[in-house]
Amino acid sequence: MWASKRPYKRLIRFLAPGRDKVFGGEPILPEGSTSINDAKIARFIRGDPLRSTYEVTDQIFEIKSLQSILPRVNSHNIIRCLGVNYRSHALEAKLPIPEHPVLFYKPTTAVCDPPHIDYECELVVVIGDHCRDVSPEEALDHVAGYTVGNDVSHREWQLHRGGGQWGFGKGFDTWAPIGPGIVTPEEFGENDPGRALGPGKGLRIWTKLNGETVQEGWTGDMIFGVAETISRLSQGTSLRRGNMIFMGTPSGVGMSRNPPLWMKDGDVVEVGVDGIGSCKNTGVFDNAMQKIVQPHSLY
Amino acid sequence: MWASKRPYKRLIRFLAPGRDKVFGGEPILPEGSTSINDAKIARFIRGDPLRSTYEVTDQIFEIKSLQSILPRVNSHNIIRCLGVNYRSHALEAKLPIPEHPVLFYKPTTAVCDPPHIDYECELVVVIGDHCRDVSPEEALDHVAGYTVGNDVSHREWQLHRGGGQWGFGKGFDTWAPIGPGIVTPEEFGENDPGRALGPGKGLRIWTKLNGETVQEGWTGDMIFGVAETISRLSQGTSLRRGNMIFMGTPSGVGMSRNPPLWMKDGDVVEVGVDGIGSCKNTGVFDNAMQKIVQPHSLY
Repeated sequence: MWASKRPYKRLIRFLAPGRDKVFGGEPILPEGSTSINDAKIARFIRGDPLRSTYEVTDQIFEIKSLQSILPRVNSHNIIRCLGVNYRSHALEAKLPIPEHPVLFYKPTTAVCDPPHIDYECELVVVIGDHCRDVSPEEALDHVAGYTVGNDVSHREWQLHRGGGQWGFGKGFDTWAPIGPGIVTPEEFGENDPGRALGPGKGLRIWTKLNGETVQEGWTGDMIFGVAETISRLSQGTSLRRGNMIFMGTPSGVGMSRNPPLWMKDGDVVEVGVDGIGSCKNTGVFDNAMQKIVQPHSLY
Repeated sequence: MWASKRPYKRLIRFLAPGRDKVFGGEPILPEGSTSINDAKIARFIRGDPLRSTYEVTDQIFEIKSLQSILPRVNSHNIIRCLGVNYRSHALEAKLPIPEHPVLFYKPTTAVCDPPHIDYECELVVVIGDHCRDVSPEEALDHVAGYTVGNDVSHREWQLHRGGGQWGFGKGFDTWAPIGPGIVTPEEFGENDPGRALGPGKGLRIWTKLNGETVQEGWTGDMIFGVAETISRLSQGTSLRRGNMIFMGTPSGVGMSRNPPLWMKDGDVVEVGVDGIGSCKNTGVFDNAMQKIVQPHSLY
């Protein structure tokens, strides 16, 4: 079982000035801040902090830029995503409240530092160790921490060209931005998104499009909470260290607006969860596929 | 680009008597046989034959047992599956012929050596090298070879408990048996399943349940052929070395029968493609999940 006592609070992967390797580390936040994006320096962690053997060192490095929180090359990794997991989003999309989690997958090639392109801010669960057939009661023991993700979606491909299956229209290369780092559950206190359930509880989750807030909700509004989701998704199915679960999006997505609000070439989209930080990308329009590719990270 | 000249015809991974490692190699078939299952000996291939550096040796080993054709731990690996890709299956399932490939994913933890459990024999494409945005004309250059897979499906979870998304009900651990090995495209001559398109063309594909043939079709009956599928699935999306594409199943599945034919505890299911071989498993019933888990390979 995943050790619940961790000698770090937050995890990032980052580049330091004058060094050409990616470091793992714990960001050191300025007084009063709870956003990883505010960190200018980090303590180097040697080894893989999601394994049992690693070392939190005394070495402090300047953060030149943040990197994807998990190496893309991660054996067994896969991105699981829940659809229709906020009541507010079910309502705006005119979809029934699901009885079971609506699960779909993205390939790990969609991980990045991101017309009818739509944004979806999501809480992302990072699994800490192998688990299978776990109960809701023990599920949170397997959580390494939480991060923020954008479940970028091509609505035409997702809904009208996939025979009902969503993976292709949401799985293009770079269409799963995640970041800025991982925060361990203990850091959230009574707002721990795994435990603070109910409308208006948990963490505020939001999207800004070109600086304007277009989505806002609370993780406590999720239909299937983190513990319930891990329990259900693990039935007969191995969840592995580093696997990610995108927990669904609240209301405010572009397709449910009147008129619809689609992303355009050069749009800057920022998804955030208070207490973790945010993940900002610029969309680059690809005429050939009528979609956004080759995003430029704006960390 | 994937080298089209290969110094081997077929690939397996196998155990040899008295050795405790898994070898890669080329099976040596008895005179007149085209089924990998008939091979008793194999030539050892040192290194990864899907990369550019490997060595076909002169060492011949006895085959004690066949192993999963690809290591489960394969960075970036994922299983792509096409739904409704045979006209005969669309007809029996009363589904329209799709205009675009119906793609869904299984996690690699579903790879193995399988009540409402159903079988689906499928041709499986193994990708030889990284490709993206390829045309149908160049797509077949990226094929390492073909193997056989069983897209084991829990119809209740797939169709009625997944909000329309199929991945969970088809993605339980061990629910993607593949094997017995990889055959390179050149070995099929005019029946190359990538090129022999049209009703009754290509390779015969079949399922036997407890020895009785329950599915039979021809790969030429596929709605989206291999080249067309690789081209479409690679749009904006990286396909990587070792990625697998399950190409869909012909008619005869259990759910479309009257009455339906569901798998039972202890059933032996064998899926095969003529010219490659077959892949045989016993289902072990798990009451808790009403599904089959912990299959025992019968290679």
